Amino acid sequence: MLKNEINTLLKIEYPIIQAPMAGGITTSALVAAVSNNGALGMIGAGYLSPAQLRDQIREVKQLTSKGFGVNLFVPNNFEVVEDEIEAANNLLHKFRSQLKIENGNNALPSMEKTLQAYNEQIQVIIDEKVPICSFTFGVPSIEVIAQLKQQGTILIGTATTVVEAMAIEKLRMDAVVVQGSEAGGHRGNFISRHDESLVGLMSLIPQVSDQVSIPVIAAGGIMDGRGLIASLCLGAKAVQMGTAFLTCEESGAHPVHKEAVLHAKDEDTIFTRAFSGKWARGIQNKFTIEMQAHNAEILMFPVQNTLTQSIRKASSSQNNKDFMSLWSGQSPTLAKNETVETLIQRIIKDAERRMI
Amino acid sequence: MLKNEINTLLKIEYPIIQAPMAGGITTSALVAAVSNNGALGMIGAGYLSPAQLRDQIREVKQLTSKGFGVNLFVPNNFEVVEDEIEAANNLLHKFRSQLKIENGNNALPSMEKTLQAYNEQIQVIIDEKVPICSFTFGVPSIEVIAQLKQQGTILIGTATTVVEAMAIEKLRMDAVVVQGSEAGGHRGNFISRHDESLVGLMSLIPQVSDQVSIPVIAAGGIMDGRGLIASLCLGAKAVQMGTAFLTCEESGAHPVHKEAVLHAKDEDTIFTRAFSGKWARGIQNKFTIEMQAHNAEILMFPVQNTLTQSIRKASSSQNNKDFMSLWSGQSPTLAKNETVETLIQRIIKDAERRMI
Repeated sequence: MLKNEINTLLKIEYPIIQAPMAGGITTSALVAAVSNNGALGMIGAGYLSPAQLRDQIREVKQLTSKGFGVNLFVPNNFEVVEDEIEAANNLLHKFRSQLKIENGNNALPSMEKTLQAYNEQIQVIIDEKVPICSFTFGVPSIEVIAQLKQQGTILIGTATTVVEAMAIEKLRMDAVVVQGSEAGGHRGNFISRHDESLVGLMSLIPQVSDQVSIPVIAAGGIMDGRGLIASLCLGAKAVQMGTAFLTCEESGAHPVHKEAVLHAKDEDTIFTRAFSGKWARGIQNKFTIEMQAHNAEILMFPVQNTLTQSIRKASSSQNNKDFMSLWSGQSPTLAKNETVETLIQRIIKDAERRMI
Repeated sequence: MLKNEINTLLKIEYPIIQAPMAGGITTSALVAAVSNNGALGMIGAGYLSPAQLRDQIREVKQLTSKGFGVNLFVPNNFEVVEDEIEAANNLLHKFRSQLKIENGNNALPSMEKTLQAYNEQIQVIIDEKVPICSFTFGVPSIEVIAQLKQQGTILIGTATTVVEAMAIEKLRMDAVVVQGSEAGGHRGNFISRHDESLVGLMSLIPQVSDQVSIPVIAAGGIMDGRGLIASLCLGAKAVQMGTAFLTCEESGAHPVHKEAVLHAKDEDTIFTRAFSGKWARGIQNKFTIEMQAHNAEILMFPVQNTLTQSIRKASSSQNNKDFMSLWSGQSPTLAKNETVETLIQRIIKDAERRMI
């Protein structure tokens, strides 16, 4: 059961993928440790510049001879409207004051530059012959798919509903991550609305498996051998785990973030748009609670993300969890602080024991 | 794996419970067919008068010599405020007009009568020596628990989070249904807030299993052998299935409701308070969409339920799905119209095949 077509496709011993968490969590040490231990390490490159991505890919190659993957954010259309920026900044000002941030204004993103950076990221994937590339927030163009396939890169899409998984299969991508409502971090919905896209894995895995023939990778709340075997029973060929790797020693998550996850309960996570402009699941804190009343003043991704950057940065450097984005799936009580090797071995031993 | 302590506790051959769907779905024919086929049939008695409950229990006893269960709604405090009733009725008036309802005003519920009916339902359970009784919307009092236990009734609580499951165990109830966010119909949260209580089964089952020692029964989106085996892998001892039984031939669900489920997609269900005043998952329709903008004018359970009764009734008798409560879990694409015997045999055969 732990060996199927996905092991061959991704050249991995165990059907486990480390979720490509963006924002400094997927250090080269984490990615390489995952790949060196028989699973698939992934670089979360959503916020990396093309140059940073190239550097990290080369660093990972130094640390492992195994395969690994990169995840990219597909750019969505956005606008920068001055009046809206002013209103959003007025709202965020009180948080900046509390954190004693003096100059909190980062350069605003533009659609043109965002698209250019994405195209350069694709070129880096090609130049560096990255074996596996996954996409979130949408699907790449037919041209990009053709280019990457031509040089042998395996392509993985991210879906939250059956209709999104079918769109990914139609584009001839090689596999699909189905993100259940349990998942921490950003929602990957790109056809379905947010409220429609919150399907739990118990419902999502079998319904997608019945409708697509490419391998299904389950993501959301999976933390141990129980979740792995359950996902495979439901029709998945592999699992993608975020929170379980986030609290590992090799992860680059802030120690305050790791502690918050390790102390959270099942009901402590919520969905918020306050940090980035896109819905994401994380542990409730002062910022998410105070921003609940201001949904109308939260701008689109990635504009909101830029506006809150100085707040998140200052909160982190002050070891203050109140304003950090404490992404977590719905199973934080199953998280442990251990090495990647211990985690993967624990999952596999438990899974093998359960199959007897 | 399909035989564990729950089979002994509930005296069933297979670890499958038919969810006690209220509102006429759990006909005596359905309940008896489930019990006669090796699973546990349950009467959804939430809206039944004590006399109706007594009649149905006696009818089920005529149809099966096997055990069966009854589910009761634990009354929550509510108030009837005249101004609020008027505002709610003004809003509902346009729907009543559309449906040509002439006299749509049902007698309003009172807290006193609700408590009295509940106490009489408990007495019926005792008088009729019902083998199994489950509770939703809260937990019974210590006195009621003691009374029912004394005559040998097995008691099952309904939880949506770890803290609720622990509260049920502490009261020495015999088992706990954990209702995942996937589940159709009313949410059973009674300590956790609605938004906190939406935990997917992939997260909920293992986290509750780690914290309580009474048997865990998984509910939400489980439709076939895949869901059964996955739930058992995650730590559950049995599953409770609603939507899968709702579309069965023996179910009393309105044909229009069955058809709506059989044609729905994974992303077609939403949470609404519009029908009853409590959050519940069902298929989106004209009523749920139009009521989205009026959350403030929706009254508490069971007041709202009484106010919408004539609307739901007229909609049903006109075979018009626009104003019916089309409860469904998140896996409607896995629903089939078949007999209870075929459904249970299909689940067990598939589960046994997957375990080899």
